[in-house]
Amino acid sequence: MTKGDWNLGDVTTPCLVVDKGKMQANLDRLASMVAAQSIALRPHLKTVKSIDAARFALPSQQAPATVSTLAEAEQFGRAGFADLLYAVAVSPQKLDRVLALRATGVDLKIIVDSVEMAESVAARARQAGDPIPTLIEIDVDDHRSGVKPDDTDNLRAIATVLSNGASVHGVMTHAGESYELSSEADRMEAARQEAERTVQAATILRDAGHACPTVSVGSTPTAFVPVARPGVTELRAGVYMFFDLVQAGIGACSPSDIALSVLTTVIGHQHAKDWIIVDAGWMALSRDRGTAGQKVDQFYGMVCNDAGEILDDLVVLRTNQEHGVISVRPGTTGTVPDLPIGTRLRILPNHACATAAQHDRYHVVGEAGATSEIWPRFGGW
Amino acid sequence: MTKGDWNLGDVTTPCLVVDKGKMQANLDRLASMVAAQSIALRPHLKTVKSIDAARFALPSQQAPATVSTLAEAEQFGRAGFADLLYAVAVSPQKLDRVLALRATGVDLKIIVDSVEMAESVAARARQAGDPIPTLIEIDVDDHRSGVKPDDTDNLRAIATVLSNGASVHGVMTHAGESYELSSEADRMEAARQEAERTVQAATILRDAGHACPTVSVGSTPTAFVPVARPGVTELRAGVYMFFDLVQAGIGACSPSDIALSVLTTVIGHQHAKDWIIVDAGWMALSRDRGTAGQKVDQFYGMVCNDAGEILDDLVVLRTNQEHGVISVRPGTTGTVPDLPIGTRLRILPNHACATAAQHDRYHVVGEAGATSEIWPRFGGW
Repeated sequence: MTKGDWNLGDVTTPCLVVDKGKMQANLDRLASMVAAQSIALRPHLKTVKSIDAARFALPSQQAPATVSTLAEAEQFGRAGFADLLYAVAVSPQKLDRVLALRATGVDLKIIVDSVEMAESVAARARQAGDPIPTLIEIDVDDHRSGVKPDDTDNLRAIATVLSNGASVHGVMTHAGESYELSSEADRMEAARQEAERTVQAATILRDAGHACPTVSVGSTPTAFVPVARPGVTELRAGVYMFFDLVQAGIGACSPSDIALSVLTTVIGHQHAKDWIIVDAGWMALSRDRGTAGQKVDQFYGMVCNDAGEILDDLVVLRTNQEHGVISVRPGTTGTVPDLPIGTRLRILPNHACATAAQHDRYHVVGEAGATSEIWPRFGGW
Repeated sequence: MTKGDWNLGDVTTPCLVVDKGKMQANLDRLASMVAAQSIALRPHLKTVKSIDAARFALPSQQAPATVSTLAEAEQFGRAGFADLLYAVAVSPQKLDRVLALRATGVDLKIIVDSVEMAESVAARARQAGDPIPTLIEIDVDDHRSGVKPDDTDNLRAIATVLSNGASVHGVMTHAGESYELSSEADRMEAARQEAERTVQAATILRDAGHACPTVSVGSTPTAFVPVARPGVTELRAGVYMFFDLVQAGIGACSPSDIALSVLTTVIGHQHAKDWIIVDAGWMALSRDRGTAGQKVDQFYGMVCNDAGEILDDLVVLRTNQEHGVISVRPGTTGTVPDLPIGTRLRILPNHACATAAQHDRYHVVGEAGATSEIWPRFGGW
């Protein structure tokens, strides 16, 4: 973290800006929802990918957290975060790195969803003398990976294989289809189903004699609903720390909650087309067009002034690698304001995970817009 | 560049692989087309963003090259590349960095497309005593930025303002709409129009007394056609070094010419859905779906075996951050092959610029698949 050596007026654009007050409010909102349910929160760090952001977001370095790559596990582990779940099915080639990181004292847990991979994990765990805590991934909504929650034979077979060397730590799921929803009622139903089906899988394993202490569920759309989750021990979510336009379209936040934006500079105009051209193209914003299928298409992002106030009906209509074209939202009747070359604007992203990944640092804005810190971020695998 | 410390079997996935032989063939193909026309080639380095790749691609460090960010200009300039065109309209805030890099001996040229910005450039150039060579951007196809080639008043006004401190180095264009074409006849027409209209703008400036030595055109789709370009002095293209599925859809290459791929590992299956799940999601492949609007949609990429041989009708159908779902192309009748967990595959990208940008290095494969070098790459602005 570095302090005080930049300000929003002269920083090189495009760059990421984080509104620390909004991020804190997003963190507080989920923390209070989870506290009311007496389950643990295991935030996903795949969105922020930053040691400084993780220190800001987590109550302590002993607090549970989730990662999406072994590079994240290693970076956060080296920085002192001690309780990590690698929430992508592991492959045989990655087990050496898992064991090496665990040998440094990081309690890294992994997931599997097949007998084939369970055999590989159990064999390496036996060989290393380390009963790697392993969760079985459950597919609650036909989204992606995982064992069906009622596939008793498969669940028991995986647990039996695992327990010969590794530790059957529990079950986990990610209700990824919830990203397609847009009403709170639908999200509540998805959250209930996510919890019930994951608990169902845990019950099958417990009936077969496995302790299965952890029942881990989560996604930002299903996390932000007031649903009881009996039997669930922990909740995971990541993008909520920043929120984004996809989450606003789903209804999990409003655009004014979004803590992440891309600062950009006007570099030209095409007056005949009512276009403002800025230096944030898809390299800075990402190619993510997650709102394209939602009720309101935000194109490549909503446009704000340099203080972060939304400019109604202005969107980034199209992008090239280093160019963004700002115009009025198609179907509206306004015209673009007169913004001279050199004007600074901020763009709210479709998908915070994707946009943040295009950058190597966050410029953090504190209270009353005061510049405060730079938080480096990392990528890679 | 590092040698010999990796092989495709044990490298961490996902990662980028470059086939050096294919890259060389792509470079040779454009070089021979351009040599036949007696115009200079000014390759765009925004795709590779790598000192090692640039050394491989350019005949010498004195050879002309193009960049899309000042970070590229600074990195390549520090590495000894001496003749660079920054091909995105500059903003006032960036002029200090332009002048600082020029002061180190790098012949960095910039572009403008308005009187407003020309005034800013001329004022800073006068103040610094450095007549920054500046090209006027021309909009030949209503694509993005630039002055219309027949807008005599505007062209002359910009040149007049510029010449009071900076140097009117010429005109440049990028026929970006050519990315929407799919026949060679259409690309030839776009290339003719790109050349003629840019020369038209140069003629207007020369008639007004400006020497305008450089007439710079280019895009990969318009570069790879046998069209005479009388009056054009240099041609720019970048993505051709690797090529990609968008360029194959346009007809500028075939899929077997593509030199860039993402190496990935099978991490699971959903047998009931005929899905293979791999560890290359959109974080590794990018969110670019440039083939979605083409005649053949390649989804998130064509699938090859670990030797780079295309597996017919297999595509990455969908992605999440760290998951890719491989299945047969919708509409075909095949089934996925039996690929155990741990199997290595390579994915050909929609858009090489976007996919490469998700990574910090290239794993370069030499003759007969021998692993050879690692080429670091950079990003940022």
